[in-house]
Amino acid sequence: MSDKFIKSKAAIAWGPNQPLSIEEVDVMLPRKGEVLVKVVASGVCHTDAFTLSGDDPEGIFPVILGHEGGGIVEQIGEGVTSVKVGDHVIPLYTPECGECKFCLSGKTNLCQKIRETQGQGLMPDGTTRFYKDGVPIFHYMGCSTFSEYTVLPEISLAKVNKEAPLEEVCLLGCGVTTGMGAVMNTAKVEEGATVAIFGLGGIGLSAVIGATMAKASRIIAIDINESKFELAKKLGATDFINPKDYDKPIQDVIVELTDGGVDYSFECIGNVNLMRSALECCHKGWGESVVIGVAGAGQEISTRPFQLVTGRVWRGSAFGGVKGRTELPDYVERYLAGEFKLSDFITHTMALEDINESFDLMHKGESIRTVIHFDK
Amino acid sequence: MSDKFIKSKAAIAWGPNQPLSIEEVDVMLPRKGEVLVKVVASGVCHTDAFTLSGDDPEGIFPVILGHEGGGIVEQIGEGVTSVKVGDHVIPLYTPECGECKFCLSGKTNLCQKIRETQGQGLMPDGTTRFYKDGVPIFHYMGCSTFSEYTVLPEISLAKVNKEAPLEEVCLLGCGVTTGMGAVMNTAKVEEGATVAIFGLGGIGLSAVIGATMAKASRIIAIDINESKFELAKKLGATDFINPKDYDKPIQDVIVELTDGGVDYSFECIGNVNLMRSALECCHKGWGESVVIGVAGAGQEISTRPFQLVTGRVWRGSAFGGVKGRTELPDYVERYLAGEFKLSDFITHTMALEDINESFDLMHKGESIRTVIHFDK
Repeated sequence: MSDKFIKSKAAIAWGPNQPLSIEEVDVMLPRKGEVLVKVVASGVCHTDAFTLSGDDPEGIFPVILGHEGGGIVEQIGEGVTSVKVGDHVIPLYTPECGECKFCLSGKTNLCQKIRETQGQGLMPDGTTRFYKDGVPIFHYMGCSTFSEYTVLPEISLAKVNKEAPLEEVCLLGCGVTTGMGAVMNTAKVEEGATVAIFGLGGIGLSAVIGATMAKASRIIAIDINESKFELAKKLGATDFINPKDYDKPIQDVIVELTDGGVDYSFECIGNVNLMRSALECCHKGWGESVVIGVAGAGQEISTRPFQLVTGRVWRGSAFGGVKGRTELPDYVERYLAGEFKLSDFITHTMALEDINESFDLMHKGESIRTVIHFDK
Repeated sequence: MSDKFIKSKAAIAWGPNQPLSIEEVDVMLPRKGEVLVKVVASGVCHTDAFTLSGDDPEGIFPVILGHEGGGIVEQIGEGVTSVKVGDHVIPLYTPECGECKFCLSGKTNLCQKIRETQGQGLMPDGTTRFYKDGVPIFHYMGCSTFSEYTVLPEISLAKVNKEAPLEEVCLLGCGVTTGMGAVMNTAKVEEGATVAIFGLGGIGLSAVIGATMAKASRIIAIDINESKFELAKKLGATDFINPKDYDKPIQDVIVELTDGGVDYSFECIGNVNLMRSALECCHKGWGESVVIGVAGAGQEISTRPFQLVTGRVWRGSAFGGVKGRTELPDYVERYLAGEFKLSDFITHTMALEDINESFDLMHKGESIRTVIHFDK
């Protein structure tokens, strides 16, 4: 710990399935190519809860969770040129280096430049910037936004318009972009298309927004929690299905409802059985299904190959297929232009000290998104 | 049997797993919207063998098999306008009506206009045109090209250039178009792409041709029968893999060989385990796998959804995604222009009387295609 550091309030996950502990940690100042960010707000996402539960096979502890943030550049390390002190930024768990095989392909947003160290909870140089009384604390998804100050590689920051409230656009750091992008970037839903969306959590509701923006003619919202239907309707969904109301497979219900199936479907939960339903509710000849949800370790999807041979397409989407540094700023601009709202998603806001309550709300299905405000 | 009819030599399959029986049948003259075709040549395809084996759950008997033919219009029924007597035609098991939801979609070649009756072995009006001593004989895949004369709906005929030898371009009625089209139409393989092709039967070898025409930079041919490698090499394949040479999963071998996987893969066998291998040997971020082979009844494909979420795409192809009436004539023109050869595929030719021998050669793996010449 020869580097200089600053003190920061942070929520530490010391081990799986334990409440987060609010403590003061030491944050090392940014090294070459790195940036110190003062986090203004951070959403609390199911992925944070998944890792905290201990079910994530790649989860490591102790760690500072959080990956859906908005912040302000506090200090830059040597060689950083794309952001300066005072810039507003959204941390990216999928970076964009612009020079790896993936970035150069023009076909994917899955930059692999720092994948290995990020997966190990470390900065690209193989070390951490967080310490508590000398004990190293791991980074999470390259972001760790449950800390007032965090350090990220320059390539993991999207610089966005300062006019956008960080307390809202932080949601573009994960869930909202994932859902909207899957519809608009990955599937490229066209005007007049029919769409089925499985699961009305933050991602599914964002997919509804994306389908509405794409001018889909019919947006079928599917959930077993009917309390979600009201907001889905407000966001543009046209049909509402609770699978519990039917004895037959839900894909059969949708195929009948749509004279042969939908043009596009999206699985926003992570349930492999619903991934199959989502594929099989697609129209013969051209229907495309996009897997967005993350399934449990070792689980598999299956179907009869005849489903594909007769023209259905099965694909997936991560972070909505959006390249964070080059494309996310435009999402912020479209938000500022009023093309979509984020306030509908924010059912709760609270201080970092209350963060464990946000996980309780999520598990009870009472929140869509809780946003942590660091100035509360 | 009040209609007029003509006598025709045909190979009848009286029941599953029996040798075909060469007999003289009565062929009813074409009704409204129908065409009588004099078959000049017909390939013998694995699908014919599959139905003859009794394993095809939709197989019905007695039937006249054959669906890969080339012929000449002998007589037209009332209202037929798109072909005239003397035209050269290729029968289509996937018709193109131009007016159903599927044809109008612009997204698929799977015309559904006559699917139901065709699946029942009947003409669109629900009757058959074949009789043997008063016993009705079913049509097969809407084609029944193992008969010297056959009747098809007008929408099931592609009119092709008379300069093309029907003894060769008959192969464009099924296998060759299926393989080439999957590469060029369905996957749209681009110049410089890497390709893996599983199975080097007629369809797989045609996929090799398609990949060569698309100027793929690397074409990996995979088969457990190494005798197929020589022709695959002649057609443009660059790498040859016999899965039996490796202890590890073949997808791992291919991923290592290609620094992360191929851009496109094609399963040309109908083996669900290889369909998984074909998907998983694709490159993260953008690799696309196309299922061409037809699996046994009830069999399923499976994989971890992570394969899709990280950017791979799983799709299928039937008849190469080619619309028979509007696009197949251009395949014949490209053949005539020398862009590809068909003679390499034709390992044997024989008279209809010897047709059972063609099935023996196929089962022994000694033929790629046997073509029946009706004038032999």
